[in-house]
Amino acid sequence: MLNLKSASSQRWLDQVAAHLDQILIDHAHCERKAASYALNLLTAYVEDEPLCRAMAEIVNEELDHFQQVLDLLKRRGIPFRRQKPGGYAQQLQALVRRPEPHRAVDRMLVASLIEARSCERFDLLRQHVADGELAEFYGSLFESEARHHATYVQLAKAYATDAEVQDRLNELADAEAEIIAGGHSLPRMHS
Amino acid sequence: MLNLKSASSQRWLDQVAAHLDQILIDHAHCERKAASYALNLLTAYVEDEPLCRAMAEIVNEELDHFQQVLDLLKRRGIPFRRQKPGGYAQQLQALVRRPEPHRAVDRMLVASLIEARSCERFDLLRQHVADGELAEFYGSLFESEARHHATYVQLAKAYATDAEVQDRLNELADAEAEIIAGGHSLPRMHS
Repeated sequence: MLNLKSASSQRWLDQVAAHLDQILIDHAHCERKAASYALNLLTAYVEDEPLCRAMAEIVNEELDHFQQVLDLLKRRGIPFRRQKPGGYAQQLQALVRRPEPHRAVDRMLVASLIEARSCERFDLLRQHVADGELAEFYGSLFESEARHHATYVQLAKAYATDAEVQDRLNELADAEAEIIAGGHSLPRMHS
Repeated sequence: MLNLKSASSQRWLDQVAAHLDQILIDHAHCERKAASYALNLLTAYVEDEPLCRAMAEIVNEELDHFQQVLDLLKRRGIPFRRQKPGGYAQQLQALVRRPEPHRAVDRMLVASLIEARSCERFDLLRQHVADGELAEFYGSLFESEARHHATYVQLAKAYATDAEVQDRLNELADAEAEIIAGGHSLPRMHS
């Protein structure tokens, strides 16, 4: 369903267990960045009405999640702050082809893969995090990430044939699996 | 209440009457751009929690209005499209001082003035537009623009004293009145 080519490793779950504060702060930034990414797509393809409608809804949901993570941080006494990003999204974005309509397809498929990986990781977290409140929270986000993944793949199909989209999604999913396998020394949602 | 230094002119109402389609399309773009502006502020001042909360809400409302204008365009058979902007917001943004915390104050006060001018013009439109559906729509937006104006002024006060904010708001409002008096040959929300 998620078109991912790998499962997240124990290495990442160990990072989460050892640095939950940093993971939570990064999670808030991820939600904020997902909203910005969607709003940038709306701006770039403003004459694509289904895309505009879908992006408006996604921005809204991501900012709602952002605020939910801020609430969570507050309840735990963790000050929200800037953090050096892990570079996962940037590495994926570097794969976006320049000329249109390939650029549109790639921007949407990159978003779809980030949503897919978040979904896969929220599912892991809801199973492995000992803290009941957190496990429940990750469970509540799981469904929307899966839906966003499907929305982005669907929207890409306005810019290429179904087969082209599927082939490119496969290629990008291979690259994503490689990036995620590389990991990152900083504990992050996508390290 | 709105801190504006001038009232909109008949010249603008004549532009609206002669080019309603372009005004409506521009209105949709204004709502979209207001959402982007707010999300950029959230990104820039992410450690300011009251600002983050307020921006998340404003983004949400602006995108809701954006979709309401899209609906309106659809019902009238007007295709939504790119349009050359009138330059009003760009001229105001050019007045933003570079060094922080002045930059924060100015970015918020520029937003507050754009919201104020929109509010003033929606009020005019609700009184002068013959079309009942449109007049009602503009009336429904009036209140949120006034509220956004006050929110931005309030948030600026985290980055300067109340007196400094009021002085700078006066200065920028003078500049805004000059820009709006200059007008623009293209019929736009802020021409």
